[in-house]
Order: sequence, then C-alpha cells, then structure tokens
Amino acid sequence: MIHNSNPSSMNERADMYPSRSNLKAQFIKRKEPIVYSAPSVKPPLDQSLIDQYANDGFMVVEDVFTPEEVAMFRRELNRLRVDPAIEASGETITEYDSDEVRSVFRIHQVSEVFKRLAGDPRLAGIARYLLDDDVYIHQSRLNYKPGFHGKEFYWHSDFETWHVEDGMPAMRALSISVTLTENHTNNGPLMLIPGSHKEFVVCEGHTPAEHFRSSLKKQDYGVPNDGSLCELAAQGGIFTATGKPGSIIVFDCNTMHGSNSNISPFPRSNAFIVYNAMSNRVGAPYCDRSVRPEYICSRDSISPIATGADYD
Amino acid sequence: MIHNSNPSSMNERADMYPSRSNLKAQFIKRKEPIVYSAPSVKPPLDQSLIDQYANDGFMVVEDVFTPEEVAMFRRELNRLRVDPAIEASGETITEYDSDEVRSVFRIHQVSEVFKRLAGDPRLAGIARYLLDDDVYIHQSRLNYKPGFHGKEFYWHSDFETWHVEDGMPAMRALSISVTLTENHTNNGPLMLIPGSHKEFVVCEGHTPAEHFRSSLKKQDYGVPNDGSLCELAAQGGIFTATGKPGSIIVFDCNTMHGSNSNISPFPRSNAFIVYNAMSNRVGAPYCDRSVRPEYICSRDSISPIATGADYD
Repeated sequence: MIHNSNPSSMNERADMYPSRSNLKAQFIKRKEPIVYSAPSVKPPLDQSLIDQYANDGFMVVEDVFTPEEVAMFRRELNRLRVDPAIEASGETITEYDSDEVRSVFRIHQVSEVFKRLAGDPRLAGIARYLLDDDVYIHQSRLNYKPGFHGKEFYWHSDFETWHVEDGMPAMRALSISVTLTENHTNNGPLMLIPGSHKEFVVCEGHTPAEHFRSSLKKQDYGVPNDGSLCELAAQGGIFTATGKPGSIIVFDCNTMHGSNSNISPFPRSNAFIVYNAMSNRVGAPYCDRSVRPEYICSRDSISPIATGADYD
Repeated sequence: MIHNSNPSSMNERADMYPSRSNLKAQFIKRKEPIVYSAPSVKPPLDQSLIDQYANDGFMVVEDVFTPEEVAMFRRELNRLRVDPAIEASGETITEYDSDEVRSVFRIHQVSEVFKRLAGDPRLAGIARYLLDDDVYIHQSRLNYKPGFHGKEFYWHSDFETWHVEDGMPAMRALSISVTLTENHTNNGPLMLIPGSHKEFVVCEGHTPAEHFRSSLKKQDYGVPNDGSLCELAAQGGIFTATGKPGSIIVFDCNTMHGSNSNISPFPRSNAFIVYNAMSNRVGAPYCDRSVRPEYICSRDSISPIATGADYD
C-alpha cells in the first residue's frame, strides 16, 4: 500500500492539477480518459448511457433497485441516524447551524447492508468498467438532507478536494449516488454541469488546517470562483437530477455539482459511494496539511472490492 | 385615515386570527371571501384563471409585459441597487451573512418607473377586481436573489406577519410578483402550496422587538411549524412557479409560500407589489410591539392608487 503521511514529500511528485496555494482561477484541460475501458469491451449498460457519461460526465439510470430494496436501505438509513455507537464515533457531520445529522460516513464498514450495496455488481460492475481497473471504496456516506431545513451544498468538483487534501493523483475515480427518497425539483436535488468534467477548475485561496471539520458542513475553500462557474454553465447548462427512489446517478470525480437548500417537507436522502481505481490510490496530500481521517478518505485499509450482493 | 400607533388598543378590537403570543400551532378556517367581486362582474382576465386563483390561492399569467418593458424594469432594478441615495436611506435589506442587497423597499415611491408599474392597469386592475374595492400599496419591493449565494426564504403566510406586526385586520390583500429574470427550477423559484390560503396557520412563539430587522433577512418567528406544513403540503402539494421574465404571479395574502436558495449563476429577481383594500387599512399591531417603519408598511401616506401606466 502506498502511504506517505509526510506532506513535505508532495514537492517530489509532479502535480498535474495544482489548486489553491494562492493560485489564480483558471481551467486546466483534463489529461485522463473519461471511460477507461476500450471501445471493444462490452459495457454493463446500454452504450447510449456510456456515451452520455463520456459527454456529460454523468448518467442517470432509473429503476436499478426494487422498491423492496429501497425500503431496506431506508430502514438502515434511519437506524444509523440514531445509532448511539455511530453518534459516539464522532464520525458524523451535523448541519453547520444545528445538531441535525447531515452525513454518516464509511457506511461500507459500519453497516452490513451498505457493505453489500457497495459491492453490488450493479454498482461495482459499472465502476470497474468505467475505470478499467480493480476498484476500492475511497469514501462512502449517507446524506440525509432533511426536509424544512436541509442546507445547500455549494458547487464543487470532488476531485479538487480529493486531489489537494487526500493526495489522489489522477482523475480515475467516480461516485455513485443511490437515491433513497424521491428527488423533486423542490427538495434540493443534485445539480450537475454537463461537460464540466473535461476542465479542472483551479480554485483560489488556500487550505486551512483541519479543513474537513467545516468543509463537509459548508465549503469555503476549494470552491470555484463565479467566473469559472459562469463559463461552465454557459457551455453546458445545468442538469437537475430528479426522479424516483432506487435510481442511481453515476458521475465522474471531476464533474462540477452542488445542490440548493430544501425547505420542502420532503427529505432528500441518498447513499453515496466513491470508487477509486486501485492504480490511483491516494498518496500524500497536494497541500501542506495533514491527511484527513480514515473515515473520510480510505488510506490504511484498502483492498479491491469483492462483489456479489446477497441481500437477506 | 385610521392610524393608532398605541399598541395597547389592540385589546379593544376583535382578533379573528390570533398568532404567536405563545399559542399552540393550529389551523383557523379563513373567514373572508377569496374573490370579492360578484360572479356577475366581468373579470379582467380569463375566468379559468380566476377560478384557479380561487381554488389554489394564486395564478400565474405569462407574457404580461413585453421584453422591452422587462428590459426597462431591469435597468431600473440595477440602477436602484447601487443608488447611493437608496443605500444611505437605510431602507434596504442585505443578506444575513453578507452586505449583498436582498431587497429594496417602497419602489413605488422612490422610482418613477415602478410607481407607474404599481399603477399599471394590468396589475392594479386585477387587484381591484379580486378585492372589489379601491386599493392602495401596502408594501412594494425589489427582491434581488443573486446568483451563487442567493438565500432561501422560509415558508410563511404574508398575512400572518401583516396581521400580527402591522395590524392588517382581514384577508383582503394580495401580492403581485413581476418576474424580471427567468425563473428556472434551479435558481430558487417561488414555491406555493395550493389551497393553503383557506387556512390561517397559527404560529408558535412570540414577536421580538424590532423583529423586521432580522425577519426580512431570515425569519425565525411567525413561521409555521413542521406539522402544519406537512398537512398543507399533503393536501395541496407544492407548486413551483417557473417561467419567462415578464410574467406575473398573483397570490392571496394568506397563501403559504417560500423559496429555496440559489447557487446557480442565474439571479432570480422580481418586483413585488402588495395591494390592500382601502377598507382593510392597517391599525395597531395585533402584538405588543411598535409599528414597523413606513417603508415596510404604508400607514401614514396611503391613498387609492391612480392607474394609467404610461412608460416613456
């Protein structure tokens, strides 16, 4: 396992995507493929979906999970939210202005149900095809986004954070969001900017110490500036991912995304699993800060994911 | 003109809609008509729209203003936002976490353009028909809701505030929002709960002194509780008002409405004019607080609105 927790070593590696460090906002053209498998390899989904993923940086696949499976995931979601052991772990993130749970982390380790979900061939099979490698879970979590007072999540590229703060070298990772409640236009659904995955947006500012403590509530660093967002949205528009529970939204690690607040009475909850290629394991952060904790970024305990979901 | 600024006199009047004062959340059936004109009176709009307003508590009318008129309103909106006299007046409301202008008030007095808009027969004619009385401007304002960092506006019935804090006796007022930018699903559009105008929602809590200083940024009192909102939304659903600039949204003073935040790059600006029936002029507040300032609630300088827009 590659693991170097000495931040000073970052200077010894090439940094393809420098960000923060008081740099000026700019675009850097993506250097890696989007779909890693060769065109000759048969995809696990309809080719038109793969083409959409390549062009837009994401795809939505409906009816992946049955209502019964969704009901099981929701029971587990509700159980974890109030599990005293989870609360005592200090590994939850609450909203920035209340004690309400915003996210529960490493659900592939604390829950048998979500461990099987992470290894479900319907998810891991897509990840392995798109990344053309064995994959491991870089991060997993439940996002609750409660009704009435669910907070917004500002625009960001996950890769920018994973690269700068976690030391993920290249764009060879993706996220799969499994929708566990209906995504309406009115309950703060995920918004994505089509085509944004083709440009790395250099963010201004720097990285504060222990940034994760605030950034997962409300991100103030590692955010694109207004001009960059205008340019991306002018090119690609904004796609709003609405739909029934049991759908999946697969998106590239560099796709710009965010969500508005949720004052509706309807929660907008999802399970969120990040697959990274084994060949793209994280190293030392690309910033002068300590590594983030294991529950936010798998570093010490990674192994290729074993597939074969077998729900009771 | 009825004007009693001595709050103690409130005990001498019947209060049809008590709220706050440490009451428990509950519904009180609306006591007044919704459309005041008799069915025999010919409406200024298609009867189906009037029926929709009666049933839902609002109606959306598209293409009321031409693109040229919208462009004129937007120039004026941009001028007022940076007008040093407006800024010096202390009559603007900024966002609660920044100095960004959220609202500019009494636009029917500080701007010739918006004075004519308030008197435009396309707006005032609808108000006079629905309220079956001469009307005056209870409040007018521009809402900017900027892109990137536009804040949410939590659910509320305007009448609850106007009744408790301004002393508006009865439900014989309405608002017309003139959309000045496109309302997308993604830029925090107005959301309304159909049918909610038929129930007055008693809000819990009390009224802090000088409540308007915070409530127009972020309302913490005079807000319905979760149970009331669930019940209203279960009955009526949530309507999201999207559409082109130049549309109007006419809504009853007691219709529950709100909006989510706006992280999109697209501002969501509108001009907002509140018409009240001359017979429904405000008196002393129905709470033990001083009256709100004139720029938020017309009290000293009211007169039936003269119609006849004549834009240059």
